[in-house]
Formats: sequence, C-alpha cells, structure tokens
Amino acid sequence: MLNNKSNFNTAQADDLVELVSTKGKYYIFKLENNKELQTHRGVIKHNDLIGKKWGSEVFSHRSSSFYLLKPGLYEWISSIKRNTQIMYPKDIGYILLKMNIIPGTTVIEAGTGSGSFTHVLATYLGESGHLYSYDKRKEVQNLAEKNILRIAKNNVTFINQDIVDGFAQTNVDAIFLDLPNPYDYLEQVIDSLKSGGYFGTLLPTTNQVNKILIALEGLNFNSIDVCEMLLRFYQADSSKLRPVDRMVAHTGYLVFARSTYKE
Amino acid sequence: MLNNKSNFNTAQADDLVELVSTKGKYYIFKLENNKELQTHRGVIKHNDLIGKKWGSEVFSHRSSSFYLLKPGLYEWISSIKRNTQIMYPKDIGYILLKMNIIPGTTVIEAGTGSGSFTHVLATYLGESGHLYSYDKRKEVQNLAEKNILRIAKNNVTFINQDIVDGFAQTNVDAIFLDLPNPYDYLEQVIDSLKSGGYFGTLLPTTNQVNKILIALEGLNFNSIDVCEMLLRFYQADSSKLRPVDRMVAHTGYLVFARSTYKE
Amino acid sequence: MLNNKSNFNTAQADDLVELVSTKGKYYIFKLENNKELQTHRGVIKHNDLIGKKWGSEVFSHRSSSFYLLKPGLYEWISSIKRNTQIMYPKDIGYILLKMNIIPGTTVIEAGTGSGSFTHVLATYLGESGHLYSYDKRKEVQNLAEKNILRIAKNNVTFINQDIVDGFAQTNVDAIFLDLPNPYDYLEQVIDSLKSGGYFGTLLPTTNQVNKILIALEGLNFNSIDVCEMLLRFYQADSSKLRPVDRMVAHTGYLVFARSTYKE
Amino acid sequence: MLNNKSNFNTAQADDLVELVSTKGKYYIFKLENNKELQTHRGVIKHNDLIGKKWGSEVFSHRSSSFYLLKPGLYEWISSIKRNTQIMYPKDIGYILLKMNIIPGTTVIEAGTGSGSFTHVLATYLGESGHLYSYDKRKEVQNLAEKNILRIAKNNVTFINQDIVDGFAQTNVDAIFLDLPNPYDYLEQVIDSLKSGGYFGTLLPTTNQVNKILIALEGLNFNSIDVCEMLLRFYQADSSKLRPVDRMVAHTGYLVFARSTYKE
Repeated sequence: MLNNKSNFNTAQADDLVELVSTKGKYYIFKLENNKELQTHRGVIKHNDLIGKKWGSEVFSHRSSSFYLLKPGLYEWISSIKRNTQIMYPKDIGYILLKMNIIPGTTVIEAGTGSGSFTHVLATYLGESGHLYSYDKRKEVQNLAEKNILRIAKNNVTFINQDIVDGFAQTNVDAIFLDLPNPYDYLEQVIDSLKSGGYFGTLLPTTNQVNKILIALEGLNFNSIDVCEMLLRFYQADSSKLRPVDRMVAHTGYLVFARSTYKE
Repeated sequence: MLNNKSNFNTAQADDLVELVSTKGKYYIFKLENNKELQTHRGVIKHNDLIGKKWGSEVFSHRSSSFYLLKPGLYEWISSIKRNTQIMYPKDIGYILLKMNIIPGTTVIEAGTGSGSFTHVLATYLGESGHLYSYDKRKEVQNLAEKNILRIAKNNVTFINQDIVDGFAQTNVDAIFLDLPNPYDYLEQVIDSLKSGGYFGTLLPTTNQVNKILIALEGLNFNSIDVCEMLLRFYQADSSKLRPVDRMVAHTGYLVFARSTYKE
Repeated sequence: MLNNKSNFNTAQADDLVELVSTKGKYYIFKLENNKELQTHRGVIKHNDLIGKKWGSEVFSHRSSSFYLLKPGLYEWISSIKRNTQIMYPKDIGYILLKMNIIPGTTVIEAGTGSGSFTHVLATYLGESGHLYSYDKRKEVQNLAEKNILRIAKNNVTFINQDIVDGFAQTNVDAIFLDLPNPYDYLEQVIDSLKSGGYFGTLLPTTNQVNKILIALEGLNFNSIDVCEMLLRFYQADSSKLRPVDRMVAHTGYLVFARSTYKE
Repeated sequence: MLNNKSNFNTAQADDLVELVSTKGKYYIFKLENNKELQTHRGVIKHNDLIGKKWGSEVFSHRSSSFYLLKPGLYEWISSIKRNTQIMYPKDIGYILLKMNIIPGTTVIEAGTGSGSFTHVLATYLGESGHLYSYDKRKEVQNLAEKNILRIAKNNVTFINQDIVDGFAQTNVDAIFLDLPNPYDYLEQVIDSLKSGGYFGTLLPTTNQVNKILIALEGLNFNSIDVCEMLLRFYQADSSKLRPVDRMVAHTGYLVFARSTYKE
C-alpha cells in the first residue's frame, strides 16, 4: 500500500516508486522484475532498483543521476491518469482545512472523477472516517477505483448513481461537489448535511460562481466564502533565485458554505 | 475535545463555539453557564446558546443575526492567541500534502511556536502517528501546550530543548523547521530523517531562502523545491462578484527537500 | 507648470514640491512664503526649502531627514484629492500602451472623475494631440479642472454633458469609458471612434465585465481583451528582501476592443 | 511611419499592418504589392488588403475571418525580432509613469537591446525630448536601429560605447539600465543624472536585486522602491469568464530610486 510504512527501508518488487532527476523531472511506476524504464536520460533496469535503500542515488545506462524515492500523496496525485480534470494539491490542501476534513469525519464527494481527490480524502479520513464517492459515469468511476486499488479502501464506498435523486447518507460532516453545475444539487446537499456542516465546490468560471452564490443565498446556508489559490514556483538555485517563467494562472474558484439549522 | 464527534447535535456548556455574523465577523469562545458575549452588534447570553442545535440562527439583544457553529481546524487556527507569528491555513494545507503528512506518520517540528501548526499536525497524524515538537523557549511552549490542552494530545510530545544538539528521534518521516535560521540545523535534520524523508521550512525573506538553498545544495538532499502560496478572497455577493480590495501579499516562501541515502 | 522644465534647478515659491522621508512617507504641496508643513516627524518651514537644490536632504525641527523632490506624474496621481475613485498608475501605464495613446492622438474619456487620468492623458497626448473629457456631474468636473489648473491644459476640452446623446467628435483614435455602465454607451462609442480605433474601460466586478462582453460581442468590435494588473511591492532592504505584508488585491478588470469597419 | 496619422484611412503599400483572427492570433507585416501571407487558416493576398479601410473584416482563401488593423505600440512591441530579451508592455507602462518619462524629457537607456523599449521611449519623449541609447554590442544596436528605422528617430541618438567610462550627457532627467549588472554603473548614473532625477532598472533575480539595493544604499540615492507587475489575462467569453490557464509568472523585479543632491 502506498502510504503505509512497509517493513522494509528498501524498494521491493510491486512497490510504487518515484525516480527524480537532478533537474526535477520525475517518473512514477510500479517496480517489476526484469522490466526497464526509458527515461529522457537513458535506460534504468528495475532489477537494479529492487533492494536499494529509499533515497539512494542511481544511474541510467548513460550515467545520468536519479534519486529513488517512495512517492507520497503529492507525487501520486501528479502521476495518475488525467482522463478527467484533476484537482491540484494547492486547492486540495486548503479544502481539507477549510472543511475540517480530518480523521474520523464522514464525507460525500460527487463526482468521483479521476479519483485523485477521492484518494486524498480517503487517506485523511483515516480508518475511523468514511467517504461516499458518487459518480453517474460508470467508466469514469471504474477508472478511479482502479487508481485507488493500490491503496487500502475500506473507508471508501463508490456509488454509481446520479445525485439528482439525492444522497443515501444523512447527518454527513462535509459534502464536496466537483461538478460543473453544483447549484442544481444544493437541496440534496442540505438534506444530507448535518446542520452546521460544510459544503464546498471548485468552479472554473465566474459565471458558475455567480450561479452558486445565487443558489446559496436562497437556501439555508451561512458563512459563504469565495477564494482562489495561486501557487508560484521558484527556481531552486541559490545564485539565481527567481520565480519560474510561467505558472498555472487558474484552476478554479473555491466556494464554501455551512448549512443552517431549520426546524 | 474540538474535533471529536460529540454525542450531541446541540451546543453544550464547555464546548468551544463559533458565532458568525451575516457579514462574516466571527467570535470563538468556550460556552459557560451565566456568561455573556459582547459583540459589535449587541450582547448574547451563553445560556441562550446552550442546548441550541449547531447551525442555528441566534440573535443579540439588538436583534442582530448570528449563526452558532462548531469551529473546525480553520477557525481554531484563526482564533488562537498570536503571541508568535502563526502559520496560515493556505501554507499548512499545502505542506501536509507536499510532505506526505498523513495518519500514521512520525513527524518532528521545531519550534513549537503558537501551537497552531502543532495542533494541525497532531490532528492529521491520527492516533497511529506521532509528533515531536521542539522549542527551547519554555514560556512559548507552555502557551502552545495550553492551547492544545483543549484537544486530545496523546500523540504529541513536547520537548523543551535547543535543537542545536540534535533530535532524540531517528528514522523520522518528516521534519519541519519553523525557525528563522533552519540552515543552521540541517545536519541534525539529516541525522534524524529516514532516508528519502521529507524536509520543509517556511521563510519570510529571499535572503533566508538563499541561505537554505546553499546549505541544502551542500548536504545530502534532493528534490529541492521553492514556492509561495497566494490566497485571494472574493466578495461573496452574486451581484458584485469581485476580489476584495486588499489581501495578504506575503507570509513566506516554502522550501522543501528530500534526504538522500548515503552509506 | 508641473511637468515643464523650470529654468531653475532649485525649488521656488509656487512650485509644487514633494518631501519624502527616509521611510518613504511623502508630502506633496505648493511652496509658499512664510508657511509651515506639519509632518509626522516635526515641522518644516517653507522658507527653508525655497532656493534649495532639487534632491537636497532637509531636516525638520526635530532633525528628521527628508528629501526635497520635484513631484512627477506618479506622485501627482497619488496626491490628488480622492473624492471619486482614482485610477492607479499600474493600470494607467498599461492602458497608454495598449490603446496606443501617444503624442498626437485624439482621445475621448468619460467621465472626468478625479481628473488624475485626465492629467496623464493630457500629458502624453502632447501639444499635437487633444483630449475631450466628458462628465455630466458639474461639481466633479469642476474639481478635476481645478486639479489640472496647475498644468497647461490647452490640449484638454472639458465637456459637461451626459454621453447618452453621444459625443460631438468623430474619427477619434481612442475612447476610454471610466463609468459603472459602459455597456450602455457602446453605440455612441462606435459612432465617434475611427474604424480600427481603440476602446477601453476599467470595471471592478465580474458582473460588469460579463455585461460589457455581451455588448461588445453584439456590436462592431474585434480584438476583445480582458486582463488585470497586480502590483506587488517589496521591502527595499538588502538584508531582508521580501514582499511587503499586504497589497492592493484588486482595482478593476481592464477591457479593451477595437472597432470594426462597416459600410 | 508607424505612429503618425497617415492621410489615408485605408491600408497602403508599405504600411505596417496587423491581421488578427477571431481567436486573437495575429500577424504583423509590411504590405507589399503582389505578396501573399500564409496564415494558420489559409492564404491572404496583400493586393486584397491594399486600399481596404482600417478595421475591415477580410477573408483567407479558406474563408477564415481576419480584421485588418493599423498596429499600435503594443502590437509593435510584441512583433519585433526577439534576439535579445524584450521588455513587456506591463513593465514599460509602469516605468513611464514612475520615472516621469513624458514629452520633453531627456532620457538615457543602456543597453539598447532589441530596441523595443527604445522605440517606446522615443515615442513618448516626443519631438521636444531626447533619448540617448547606449550599447557596446555593435550588432545588437544595429538591429535595434533597423527596427526603429520604420519610425521617425530624430529624437534618438544611438551611442555604441561601453558605459563603464560614463555617459557623455549630464543633467539628464532619467536613466534606465537594462543590463545584468546595473550595480556596477551607479556612479556613472549619479554623474549624469540631474539631482532629484530618476533611476530605474529591471532585474530577473533576487540576487541581482540584493546587489543593487546594497549599491544604492551606499550612494546618493533616495526613494528606493522595488516592485513587480503581474498581468493576468481572462478568456474574453461572456458565458465562460475566467482567467486563462497559464500566465507569464515573472519577467523581472523593477527597482527605482531618485538621486540626492550633494554639494
């Protein structure tokens, strides 16, 4: 399993591993006996990695240097297949804190999408929490399940269902809608969220933000909040410290609210 | 305890509660029998809140509307006493993912500071993880401990010691230094971090970033990364959707690295 | 006159002058015989400044240091009375280039507002260009005229008129609308702009941007462009180089377009 | 000439023209009899453009729509050959205002570089101002001169000389150094700048900013200022208003100062 402590401090066959070059280019893949990895700087044999200590420097057949690392959540998110839009770590980290998604909480997400957010949620809810992940697109959800197969998933329930009919769960701590039209499902959210619970969504356009604000203002919500996260990377060179030339300028606007109790 | 599910869906005496106005102004305090809260919009009696459902709308003696909420991590961070510089949720959320700080991991932080980051780490490490929090300033650490008294802390060990002599723990998953001069302690970090483990720090000035880059380049580290997070809030008004006038322009530069295995 | 080269390299009575402290705090005022300036660091007598070389260091009665400077456009913009929202230099500079507002061009602006943009336009159009500045609010325009009295204004015509009835000029190079509802006057803009001419506006909310985009899409415009400028200041301290803590997060969205020729 | 009003409101042979597609892709070139332009959407004959009104819609042989425009400063900057790093309009506009570079002023720039900034300066100084443009690289300067050949340049003097020996001019209003090591020439700047005059530079790295701050602090300068401009473009679509996905994250830090008078 990705995130558990293995008994070994060396890479083993079937482990998910990361190789990162000195320039920061990385490869994430499963170690398999007798396989080879083609990098932009030469070939590396899987057999040469098996049994190596995590953190070791290794070399391609062209003598290029790489580091052998156990990938964490961040690297895993960046490596999964992007058949749907993924959520970025910059947004996910903020959502966790803002929606108080901590070990032991019960959360609903819709849709499942690529499963990257699903994975992060399942990780942070811990064994005492539970995630219900809805998606009406069977194929999309299957792919996400496959992505999450690598990790323990006894705290995730995938539900292949349109949320227009509502969620089966009630008194839920937090609901996150990763859908283009979350404003169409807010009554369903109200029905399943515990009073004072957290609602969140991520929307690319201001038009969508406008619509969700109108919808939230008309229902039992309070503490409505809109924000965006900008992440700027720097060249990690002590003699030329400066922001990199280009950056991701936009992923989406984050919108949050809490449900109001009504008798 | 702040984050546990209470058996009640109503606010009880001794609960930590949040009152938020319709304009977003909030108060976080402990509910106590016969006490009163002075707000900018009139007085609210604690007794009128005890027994109320979470998420309820309540009114001050001047008929101003507030919502009664159970504060989450985010609100808690914003409410603690700021005798030292606190870390912001925008930075903390990203650090969690980037350093793979998840339930079950072992983490060192130094210094303890206000305890806000300590609290978040303790929460996300879960019962199966452990946090060692170092600070040489006895009074600062005492205050942090007091802040964290409200929550379960059987997974946090406070150590009142200068880290110049190193950390008592070894094979640690991640070490975060929240100090003005982290570049002076990197050998100590190397000694205690497991190989391939995560190092992180937050530094306000480019001068400090320069120094840590020089230090990291000279020791057994790889995957060095420098970035900053910018959080921009919007006016949550569907008829006037726009960024708010002013924002926090800078908290600090985040610097990350992973340790390299050396025989 | 503010921007002309005076025959003197010393400050004279009736000159507009700037005093700036070593911490960057500044005062802009007219030099007058026998007057005094109250600063946050003591009193300075005008008579002590008259005859001093530009760029000189001068001292208050409490021995605090100031520099005596001839204010430029930038300082002038920052100093004028802000009875209406002023445009910021960060936006103005970009508008000049984007709309090709250079010496010799003919430009219309509406409304006149505080006159700060009026002043900048009049300066850059030069003697061979001309600016027509419309505002229906007589008092607002009078104040702007007064602000601009200090500089030569033979290339500015103030017109106290509602633009709903259109502009008296035709074949104009560029039209800038600094109004809350520019989308209501685009046909008037088309009538007065030369074909291929430049249209620009600055709007605080996304709702307004949406409206102007709909209006522009429905009329003879091309090359529609929306952007925003963010200006971030740094602490100018070589030992602590870092962004300042807080910044202006938003002034407005800039929208530009060019008119299409129709037979 | 680019910026003068031609007597015609139609495009003529030898005119510099811009063709912009409905998606914002643009071509800038000189109109010549019997030539053809290859676009990404088919061929357009120059002869079909000659005599067309500015602002007209024209079509490629594949019936794709373009608009025929007279390029302004902004488009011209974006079109010149980029054998050296060019300065961006977002930075240039701000520099103009901040350094009070207006019609009638005398300015020195070094180096000449691509000539894009040279062009803008020459334009805004007007006929009554003058620009002295220094570059020690003969070939680079020749190319810039060629770029500026298209416009009147009787207010620009190109000087092919290393500035280590100083500038031939004195009592200059403003000096801008577009060089990697401006801190090596500040005494030369002091010698040529009038007292109270403006100094400016643009530097990509924080290391360079540190060096110039140290140098400025040690010489007769006041009002030292460091900032950066961020320009964020939006999708100009009323139904999907949002920032574009990626942006230029960094061009450089702007540093300004004014010279102090010393007897």
